[in-house]
Amino acid sequence: MTLLDETIARIGPLDAAATESARMREATLTKPPGSLGRLEDLALQLAGITGTERPTLRRKAVVIMAGDHGVTAEGVSAYPAAVTPQMVANFLAGGAAINALARSVGARVTVVDIGVNADLAAMDAGGAGDAGGIGDAARPTLLVRKIGRGTANAARGAAMSRDEARRAIEVGVEVVALEVARGLDLLAVGEMGIGNTTAASAIVAALTGEPPALVTGRGTGVDGLALRHKVGIVRQMLAVNRPDPADPLDVLAKVGGFEIAGLVGLILGAAAARVPLVLDGFITGAAALVVVGLCPAVRPYLIAAHRSTEPGYEVILARLALEPLLDLGLRLGEGSGAALALGLVDAAARHLTEMATFTEAGVAGADGA
Amino acid sequence: MTLLDETIARIGPLDAAATESARMREATLTKPPGSLGRLEDLALQLAGITGTERPTLRRKAVVIMAGDHGVTAEGVSAYPAAVTPQMVANFLAGGAAINALARSVGARVTVVDIGVNADLAAMDAGGAGDAGGIGDAARPTLLVRKIGRGTANAARGAAMSRDEARRAIEVGVEVVALEVARGLDLLAVGEMGIGNTTAASAIVAALTGEPPALVTGRGTGVDGLALRHKVGIVRQMLAVNRPDPADPLDVLAKVGGFEIAGLVGLILGAAAARVPLVLDGFITGAAALVVVGLCPAVRPYLIAAHRSTEPGYEVILARLALEPLLDLGLRLGEGSGAALALGLVDAAARHLTEMATFTEAGVAGADGA
Repeated sequence: MTLLDETIARIGPLDAAATESARMREATLTKPPGSLGRLEDLALQLAGITGTERPTLRRKAVVIMAGDHGVTAEGVSAYPAAVTPQMVANFLAGGAAINALARSVGARVTVVDIGVNADLAAMDAGGAGDAGGIGDAARPTLLVRKIGRGTANAARGAAMSRDEARRAIEVGVEVVALEVARGLDLLAVGEMGIGNTTAASAIVAALTGEPPALVTGRGTGVDGLALRHKVGIVRQMLAVNRPDPADPLDVLAKVGGFEIAGLVGLILGAAAARVPLVLDGFITGAAALVVVGLCPAVRPYLIAAHRSTEPGYEVILARLALEPLLDLGLRLGEGSGAALALGLVDAAARHLTEMATFTEAGVAGADGA
Repeated sequence: MTLLDETIARIGPLDAAATESARMREATLTKPPGSLGRLEDLALQLAGITGTERPTLRRKAVVIMAGDHGVTAEGVSAYPAAVTPQMVANFLAGGAAINALARSVGARVTVVDIGVNADLAAMDAGGAGDAGGIGDAARPTLLVRKIGRGTANAARGAAMSRDEARRAIEVGVEVVALEVARGLDLLAVGEMGIGNTTAASAIVAALTGEPPALVTGRGTGVDGLALRHKVGIVRQMLAVNRPDPADPLDVLAKVGGFEIAGLVGLILGAAAARVPLVLDGFITGAAALVVVGLCPAVRPYLIAAHRSTEPGYEVILARLALEPLLDLGLRLGEGSGAALALGLVDAAARHLTEMATFTEAGVAGADGA
């Protein structure tokens, strides 16, 4: 049995007893019933994921999967592929958007090189790096877990082999285990990989049957003719590879990316470990579609951070019946939206866990009851 | 010259030089232009408010204005008036929703008794209370600044005198000064006062000319016949008092509340001190309408936290041209939505202040530039 199969086998339904217990507690808290809106639903979901009536989500991490894409040779991005390793260096130095946003919610940052087309080992800026993943929580950590130096050009053939896709998923599962060992209550996921909106669009088109033009967007900033070219490349990726929509691993291997496979592993691993995980935007959403194809039991574990401006994200949200917490016009990736949402998820847990009941506080209920 | 007049005189336009400088910095940060969506606009607003290209918003406070309403005698609320002091006690003990949410964003909590119909001095749970307001940051502080023990019943006559309204506003201005003395970079405002959605609806109807039925909602939970009764009371408040829409202080005095006047003072005081302030929901929005009537220069300082489910809030947002940051179906008050939004506002400032530029990080720009 592979680690992937084992992980899927460990994932059960949400804890119905904890959810029900949390629902009863919710009704006794000192506020009008329902007045915290979606935070209340989210708190019950957190109770179901963690299996406790009063979840505590103090230890937060953002894990960023980074990988390169052979399809960038087709000119699908506004930025050169060299930006992937440059941005990883920026993450490790603490200067990227995700670092600032993670600091705002008190989350540590771990970057996983799962397929960057450069030698990053020298870049570890002070975290424990590959030595086991236990570093200074205030400094980002680099884990080098390369499956390859970028995928093959999926417009000409499969991006990776089926075995590589499985191994990349297993890297994600293992990273969750490492992060749990460091102490983890709440996980945000993100990615870096020039070209990865193209791969994500191909995955979404393949798995949902929606036309490439509907699920392909501007990414980091292409528009006009460049966007039409990008749509054409997505169409070509599907025509060349003929991924099987009934076989999510086939789709992931043929038109996906190493970092997208790594995200699949993070999502599976977090559900298996009963750690709440917050998706970011389009790329992480495409990974979630693959996950639910592999293991439908993960669906109720999913938490969508924000409404990405990528048009394909709407298709993903509809398929997974998810409603994001935020709608701020973000389209950055890196886990930026997920990091922002960590604060809301923590707040949802805290209201359930920390608030006094009417009886404890000596407050009269509605209509003086 | 009164403190109110002096405060209004101190409020100038946003700092255009700081905003422009922040806009130029924004364009150099290591991310695709515009990819952080509304966080970018918010960051520029914060630069304009604080007068610095790189704002730092570490020290956060939530100030809750609490007061009672004579109009509760008309049966407008699902909860008895006794809940106002009971909830203040809950705030001071740390057991209310606002306490949990404030902890989630690292904000201290200050409760101002500006007109509660009970003796709260004995309730101070360990903060410095009236002794000057410098307490243990981890424990909520009570400031007793009573203008009266609840307003008069505004369905039968003026809620308060014009002089009381002015003094209540000045309490808010003074509280900002106290909080600034404790160290304050970012302020969230909230309120507690059984009956105050009725007062806020009357203010909004009076200032905007919209019919009471359009701007009166469920509050803490009335519906059906009880909601129709509440609309009728709002109508009666306007008919009995005939507040002058061209005179915001007249409207505030006749149909408002002590805590709403206190909020007006907080908003004016924060703008004068150039401290970013985040509005909460409907009640704080009604206060903001009064503020902009008194001092239109405050408009560009306003930050709306969340889209309250109270129907009158939409009218306020449209009048003030505000777009809230969050839409989570909240209808609690207490500053709960504002506290949640503090994390987003901090994140917006941090991305502008803490991110590396393309040059600093050695990252290639779009199209390899």
